[in-house]
Amino acid sequence: MSDILISEVGPRDGLQSIKAIMPLDAKKAWIKAEAEAGVTEIEVGSFVPPSLLPQMADTAELVRFAKGIKGLNVVALVPNIRGAQNAAAAGVHAMSLPFSMSETHSMKNLRKNHAQMIEEIKEIAQIAKMANIHFAVGLSTAFGCTIEGAVDEDQVAHLAEAAANAGAMEFSLSDTTGYADPAQVKRLVKKVASAVGADKMTTLHLHNTRGLGLANVAAGLDAGITTFDASLCGLGGCPFAPGASGNIVTEDLAFMLNAMGCKTGIDLDKLLRVRDILAAALPDEPLYGFTPDAGIPLGMEQRNKG
Amino acid sequence: MSDILISEVGPRDGLQSIKAIMPLDAKKAWIKAEAEAGVTEIEVGSFVPPSLLPQMADTAELVRFAKGIKGLNVVALVPNIRGAQNAAAAGVHAMSLPFSMSETHSMKNLRKNHAQMIEEIKEIAQIAKMANIHFAVGLSTAFGCTIEGAVDEDQVAHLAEAAANAGAMEFSLSDTTGYADPAQVKRLVKKVASAVGADKMTTLHLHNTRGLGLANVAAGLDAGITTFDASLCGLGGCPFAPGASGNIVTEDLAFMLNAMGCKTGIDLDKLLRVRDILAAALPDEPLYGFTPDAGIPLGMEQRNKG
Repeated sequence: MSDILISEVGPRDGLQSIKAIMPLDAKKAWIKAEAEAGVTEIEVGSFVPPSLLPQMADTAELVRFAKGIKGLNVVALVPNIRGAQNAAAAGVHAMSLPFSMSETHSMKNLRKNHAQMIEEIKEIAQIAKMANIHFAVGLSTAFGCTIEGAVDEDQVAHLAEAAANAGAMEFSLSDTTGYADPAQVKRLVKKVASAVGADKMTTLHLHNTRGLGLANVAAGLDAGITTFDASLCGLGGCPFAPGASGNIVTEDLAFMLNAMGCKTGIDLDKLLRVRDILAAALPDEPLYGFTPDAGIPLGMEQRNKG
Repeated sequence: MSDILISEVGPRDGLQSIKAIMPLDAKKAWIKAEAEAGVTEIEVGSFVPPSLLPQMADTAELVRFAKGIKGLNVVALVPNIRGAQNAAAAGVHAMSLPFSMSETHSMKNLRKNHAQMIEEIKEIAQIAKMANIHFAVGLSTAFGCTIEGAVDEDQVAHLAEAAANAGAMEFSLSDTTGYADPAQVKRLVKKVASAVGADKMTTLHLHNTRGLGLANVAAGLDAGITTFDASLCGLGGCPFAPGASGNIVTEDLAFMLNAMGCKTGIDLDKLLRVRDILAAALPDEPLYGFTPDAGIPLGMEQRNKG
């Protein structure tokens, strides 16, 4: 089995979805402990105005801290050119821009239509190039939109191609709304890979809104995906469904990939212990995950050493 | 996409795993409502001595009731020859015998070693043949055992072949312990199909102990599986992991298969409403499932009509 990258997005996608603000020291402890468990890429925050998302106000400081951890790829989300400039100034290794495949959602979320987003991508690609930063684009609402419903799959491939021509170096398909199913994952990954090249169509960002998160991972693996975003403790929940988890749970994903014989480099036992940091820092947040309750099965200890 | 059968096992596997005894009338209402939602096969109970499992004491009566529902395939579990005789007397359409692939577990669970189980299967196959009843064997602990750890996959194929020669008509691979992963599911389904014929290796009985249940369904579909057991509300939980669900959740499974374009015949909206019966009859039991919270996505109403 091949190497698979688990990209931890909890400090960004998890924390921006909850009301509580995690103290900076707890964020640092989380990032450090998770890196020690073998996670090699973490999205540490988002360069958005603190007035909009106070939970992300310390992103620049987290970037500097995380860059001190050997072997860790430090990623931040950027919503626009201003964010990209700030991310570059902070010294991220990589930045990620959400590009909504539903134009209605794009207008509502970033107040830009598709043509304007392509222009934005061109400018951010220049910033990334100048600063020698990796620049990925997340194709959000790619599997469906809570406002528009179904999103045309050919349009997704077409927009990805336009973004690649504008300078995006890598793509993630994001199931922002929890609509994706395994058949659609295989279909859409292949379609976008055909449009931009399989080397650029590497990542899935999946939510577990309807419990299909790991099924979609299994489908993604079959389609050649090599990177999966996930959130420790499934932090953040799902705004559309109280009680339902949001991002797929890092611990369950790591268990599945390790069990399948993929090389994740993650020591599951150490990873499970990182939950204590979140439980202490966010006492009122529900923490998700099945493997944390069930534990590592008898006879599977070795392959979960990472 | 092909026709896929969802076989509801909640009235047996769900109810036998909880302390509360569901009143007969509630069981009948459940079975009737679920059949009306489009479920065409239900395992209504188990022919075990009521002294061991008082929750299953009314199985014969439930069989008679369920046989009155047009188009419903009525299944019961039988642990041994005596159970098979009682199932035949009650008039089941099909009976299912658990055959543990871990000999330690087999001794502990049914007090028989593998050779004794093959003898038992021979006798039950005779009973089934005489009564014109379908006879399936569930290869339990096939993916691993909480006592033995890993279970040899070649041994599973070998034991399935012996059971087929003894008269078993169809096989289910059961992830009794929640150890299975998608790679293993594909491998083991192919191995057993090679041993007994793909037409007999039709079914997966999966648990969601570590959150991988639907991922294993996706893998099973790829491997040619056409029947999946599931339990409404994930009823029964998991004895090894408090808070973790046991059987995969019928509602989430139906959503996934419908979304993928498989023909399940299930009206998801109607199915979701059957939960009310369980909630009312078992007020102290936790009910699981993601789709019930998140609902049917915008634009996917039609394909969830069944």
